[in-house]
Amino acid sequence: MELSTPGPTVGVVGGGQLGRMLGEAAGPLGVEVVALDPTPDPPAAPVVRDTVTASFDDADAVEALAERADVLTYEIELAEPELLAAASEESGTPVHPDPETLRTTRDKLQETAAMAEFAPVPAYRAVASAADVRAAGEELGYPLMVKARRGGYDGRGNVPVEGPGDAEAALAEATGHAPEQLPEDAAMVEALVPFERELAVMGVRGDGERAAYPVTETIHREQILRASVTPARCSEPVREEAREVALSVLEALEGRGVFGIETFHVEGVDPDRLAGAGAEGARVLVNEIAPRPHNSGHWTIEGAACSQFEQHLRAVLGWPLGGTDGRAAATANLLGDVDEPQPATMSGVDAILGEPSAHLHWYGKREARPLRKMGHVTVVGDDPGTTLERAGELRDATTFR
Amino acid sequence: MELSTPGPTVGVVGGGQLGRMLGEAAGPLGVEVVALDPTPDPPAAPVVRDTVTASFDDADAVEALAERADVLTYEIELAEPELLAAASEESGTPVHPDPETLRTTRDKLQETAAMAEFAPVPAYRAVASAADVRAAGEELGYPLMVKARRGGYDGRGNVPVEGPGDAEAALAEATGHAPEQLPEDAAMVEALVPFERELAVMGVRGDGERAAYPVTETIHREQILRASVTPARCSEPVREEAREVALSVLEALEGRGVFGIETFHVEGVDPDRLAGAGAEGARVLVNEIAPRPHNSGHWTIEGAACSQFEQHLRAVLGWPLGGTDGRAAATANLLGDVDEPQPATMSGVDAILGEPSAHLHWYGKREARPLRKMGHVTVVGDDPGTTLERAGELRDATTFR
Repeated sequence: MELSTPGPTVGVVGGGQLGRMLGEAAGPLGVEVVALDPTPDPPAAPVVRDTVTASFDDADAVEALAERADVLTYEIELAEPELLAAASEESGTPVHPDPETLRTTRDKLQETAAMAEFAPVPAYRAVASAADVRAAGEELGYPLMVKARRGGYDGRGNVPVEGPGDAEAALAEATGHAPEQLPEDAAMVEALVPFERELAVMGVRGDGERAAYPVTETIHREQILRASVTPARCSEPVREEAREVALSVLEALEGRGVFGIETFHVEGVDPDRLAGAGAEGARVLVNEIAPRPHNSGHWTIEGAACSQFEQHLRAVLGWPLGGTDGRAAATANLLGDVDEPQPATMSGVDAILGEPSAHLHWYGKREARPLRKMGHVTVVGDDPGTTLERAGELRDATTFR
Repeated sequence: MELSTPGPTVGVVGGGQLGRMLGEAAGPLGVEVVALDPTPDPPAAPVVRDTVTASFDDADAVEALAERADVLTYEIELAEPELLAAASEESGTPVHPDPETLRTTRDKLQETAAMAEFAPVPAYRAVASAADVRAAGEELGYPLMVKARRGGYDGRGNVPVEGPGDAEAALAEATGHAPEQLPEDAAMVEALVPFERELAVMGVRGDGERAAYPVTETIHREQILRASVTPARCSEPVREEAREVALSVLEALEGRGVFGIETFHVEGVDPDRLAGAGAEGARVLVNEIAPRPHNSGHWTIEGAACSQFEQHLRAVLGWPLGGTDGRAAATANLLGDVDEPQPATMSGVDAILGEPSAHLHWYGKREARPLRKMGHVTVVGDDPGTTLERAGELRDATTFR
């Protein structure tokens, strides 16, 4: 294969931190990135060839982006699958991953059903009323999780149900609809299973190749990813099961790219509360899939031979995939620890810069908001637990207050 | 210390591959780069905030760059020290490294004299005529190297003298002046010493800190760097001597930044052919210094905790320095293997992309020219010799023809 100057242009719908890190990965490859984002001067702007300011649902802008790109991709689920497909049709520019995959993952019920064909999942049901929730509770047992089928993010739209009396309130909270006005396709429930830990695997579909990175343990609080450590601190057989589940579930997806596959490590769950392929005796259940690079894969920038961002560019371009092997690495998110939105100024940066094993990643957001992802720090080393501890200490040394 | 959005802006005089790699390193730090280059759309353009198209000697443009930057630096010796100093004076924006250092390193005689105060060098003399060359030959012995004091690059301007009869021709070839018209300050000679190998050390001067990376062995052909391997394949005491020499020679320099320090590893050289501090018994002689990131330090991008490009940004900003420890890494330059200038299209890229231990760096130059640096490939691993061999194989799998 050949590389010229200028190299291929990748059009990215979304110019947030993922678009920025795609841009950072593009330079060495000779790839140029143009990012579309509704925010003027978004995080990606200082590091990419160009940005286009337009809404994600601006059909003309998406088509114009496709026209100037060699391949179109997206870094945010707010991208519109229909517009991507239409822009691709009009321009002849391929879109990866396939917009159909995006359509599937934007609907948690469709996503879960698609995953269940290839991998174990918590038992689930579509629900259109509180009565449906209670019926599911009788069948699957409690607790359940009510999920809005669309628009959830960082755990928003997920509400637990401990018993039949919670059904109405949980549905209303998860979907934002009064029970009597609930659309038929707004919600689902699934068995809320106790888990040992959450595991994430970055998978990648290339041109005839599939691969998976070492398994990452993710640590959430208030349903937001706080930290990660790779390899995950569970037994090798559980890690191996997670990688196999991830490689299987890649079959449920169409098109090329990196996918963030979030799973639960469970032990001894009642078989009635599980579903999907290989559910019997499963210790790893798929929770959800992001059809794009993912927060749980940020460790790959320093920790793996090829970062998830370079990998995504290679995959969407149909280039050979890069190496996924890695060394121990942990990340801690630098979240807005503020009560109100305020200009983004973080103190304590010298703690991170002064630690030789640490790497700062600043996302270039102008405003710090409560729990907003403003950056992350990665610590590489030999021992996962030590890197995780150090990453947490460095995060704790910083503040936006 | 604090970091905000937008982060500090580093104005870089020069937008070639070094400016590009500074831009690639700036994103994660929240640093923005603006590069000044006479070429429209230079290599740095797709990865930096902005570029300014202007000659290096355009005083107004350099001053305007200083006005919009928090610190000014340069990635090419064609930057004009006087203009940098004046722009700094006018704008109040600091320049690093100090323009005085650039002035010194732009004149090989001044540079050698400055280095000799702190480190061993080949014996040298200023020469203003062929008679001066012959006088030096009588004193120091032959062979000598005649060097143009200014404007040399990649070995251009260096011509060996085997005996007194070569003096006129060598002076003319090195300086481009007929012997009878030779300016008094155009040339110098130094003892041409046989060396075991060439060693380079990337040194860095920060805010009150000094550091040096592990020692790199550089492999030149036709006076152009072809490949490098780190750690250098010599004994640990010689490597240690090279690092000490590099740390000493940093004393000869003013201001902050990364410096490429090129040295010769010699054995058993006649003491009369050596000069400078610690010349007696020296096995490492300083050859020259680049006041900027350097080709011989490209391995640090993947091979060291903190790359030379991130390190340079940290240093010029006065931030804490990053870690210099590394693992085995080799680089091979992807040079224009063409007879005439032609559009840059390299085939064989899949060989590099398909090797998990390899990293491609494409410089984004539109035209391939004979022996022009178009990119490089880095291979990381455990054994220096193996990484060097593999890097060479991957380079040989590519061509611009």
